[in-house]
Amino acid sequence: MSLLVVGTVAFDAIETPFGKTDKIIGGAATYASLAASYFTQDINLVSVVGDDFPQATIDQLNEHGIRTEGLQIKKGEKSFFWAGRYHNDMNTRDTLATELNVLMTFEPVIPESYQDCTFLMLGNLMPSIQMKVMQSLREHPKLIVMDTMNFWMETAMDDLMKAIAMVDVLTINDAEARQLSNEYSLVKAAQKILKMGPKYLIIKKGEHGALLFNKEQVFFAPALPLEDVFDPTGAGDTFAGGFIGYLARTKDVSFENMKRGIIFGSAMASFCVEKFGTERIINLDQEEVESRVQEFVDLVQFDITLV
Amino acid sequence: MSLLVVGTVAFDAIETPFGKTDKIIGGAATYASLAASYFTQDINLVSVVGDDFPQATIDQLNEHGIRTEGLQIKKGEKSFFWAGRYHNDMNTRDTLATELNVLMTFEPVIPESYQDCTFLMLGNLMPSIQMKVMQSLREHPKLIVMDTMNFWMETAMDDLMKAIAMVDVLTINDAEARQLSNEYSLVKAAQKILKMGPKYLIIKKGEHGALLFNKEQVFFAPALPLEDVFDPTGAGDTFAGGFIGYLARTKDVSFENMKRGIIFGSAMASFCVEKFGTERIINLDQEEVESRVQEFVDLVQFDITLV
Repeated sequence: MSLLVVGTVAFDAIETPFGKTDKIIGGAATYASLAASYFTQDINLVSVVGDDFPQATIDQLNEHGIRTEGLQIKKGEKSFFWAGRYHNDMNTRDTLATELNVLMTFEPVIPESYQDCTFLMLGNLMPSIQMKVMQSLREHPKLIVMDTMNFWMETAMDDLMKAIAMVDVLTINDAEARQLSNEYSLVKAAQKILKMGPKYLIIKKGEHGALLFNKEQVFFAPALPLEDVFDPTGAGDTFAGGFIGYLARTKDVSFENMKRGIIFGSAMASFCVEKFGTERIINLDQEEVESRVQEFVDLVQFDITLV
Repeated sequence: MSLLVVGTVAFDAIETPFGKTDKIIGGAATYASLAASYFTQDINLVSVVGDDFPQATIDQLNEHGIRTEGLQIKKGEKSFFWAGRYHNDMNTRDTLATELNVLMTFEPVIPESYQDCTFLMLGNLMPSIQMKVMQSLREHPKLIVMDTMNFWMETAMDDLMKAIAMVDVLTINDAEARQLSNEYSLVKAAQKILKMGPKYLIIKKGEHGALLFNKEQVFFAPALPLEDVFDPTGAGDTFAGGFIGYLARTKDVSFENMKRGIIFGSAMASFCVEKFGTERIINLDQEEVESRVQEFVDLVQFDITLV
């Protein structure tokens, strides 16, 4: 009954209106597995880094219950590196550098000990790699959640469509939903995308929250209004990790339970943006998580009795 | 125990990606009073039109329980007219024409029969006029809700600040909240604006919903995800009308009840944008309103029990 998280483990250098970092730890799988670790301690990571990646960070992941047998360490090579600068509104950013390094030749290998995978989180990666992971699992997971981005819609659309057809939950942002469906209305976009194969679609709207669709239902969760969004890097991956981590803990993949997963994912994302990189989500305690979820309850719950 | 609505009654000409209208009925007070009429039949309107304004429309307002003794009809003059064109995203628009006409010399007069005003909705108008209305009431209403816009922040800031200090609930959009407070974070903006006098602040975010703040609490309601937003004109006024109409019906101005008011207001606004102008909100029935509110309940309600 384990959760398998596949995605990048990397270095980031980030500039926001609030400050600037040197190389810090980043990567979709780092954020997602850390977020999930607050809900389940049965997490297997598949990724690749160079031998420039600090052992201390790998130790930290292990302490969070994240197994790293599937984390390939390439001798003499460098880890994936991304540098970006956020604009004042935090919704737009410029990429200053993308050094693929080890990612260029990444072939995911699923260790034998990971084959009990029940929940699979595919972080944003080349769609052919995401497909290869799904094909490498001997048994079909109970739930596959996949994240992707506009870049693959422009460069690998055929593979992306094949990968999308294989997953249960697709997570993309609002601009990507519009691009993938060629529809401006997110309701129409969701209807079209659900015809591409996934049973559920999560549209991430950043500071404007997230929508969960299946063919019959829709659920909306806001982002928590914060005094400052310090650094949005990793918020989407943290959201996805909290979502699937909660589902893995509760072993319930109903729409009703996915709503709760969305709220827990949103709570984790609201922590993520409060500091640079993984700084805020690496040392949370259960009480903080629950009190943050309570803030979401207070933010949106109302009591209307219709006649 | 009546609701007084003061604001424009006007003509609009609207272009959206879906079509284009000739002169149709518009105006903040028209939208707000129509929306409120689904909750209370005790509504008094104060506004001004020219003798080009159709008696049939005034009759329609009366049929909705909206008294028009305070609607001045200026002989030989023309009604306020606004023309605008919406862009594809419906969040931005160009003003094509603004003909103030009767508004240029508008002096609101509160008829004696309106002096039992318990709830006051001040639609967007020159702040000095909004103040004059408040000063004309012999007894202080139970609740004053005021809408305004960026134009007055640029041209009549001193008067605007005085008017704001006199109201209970201020409604503005997110860009206006940022402009008024000089803060990008809406949480910080709200803190600053609440120090200017109002007890409550509603920040309208269009398709991204609305936030209600007081000094200690915050509530968020999404906009209903719609297949198409046909025409956003009047949505904010319809929202405000539904909000204060619901409060006037229930005579309860607690934060908890304001949450419900926000949901009813959002439901009314979701109807408004489905057709041009007031077309959709002029002929609703109670069942439609309740079933729309149920859609909001289904959209945001979840059930999390924290340990």
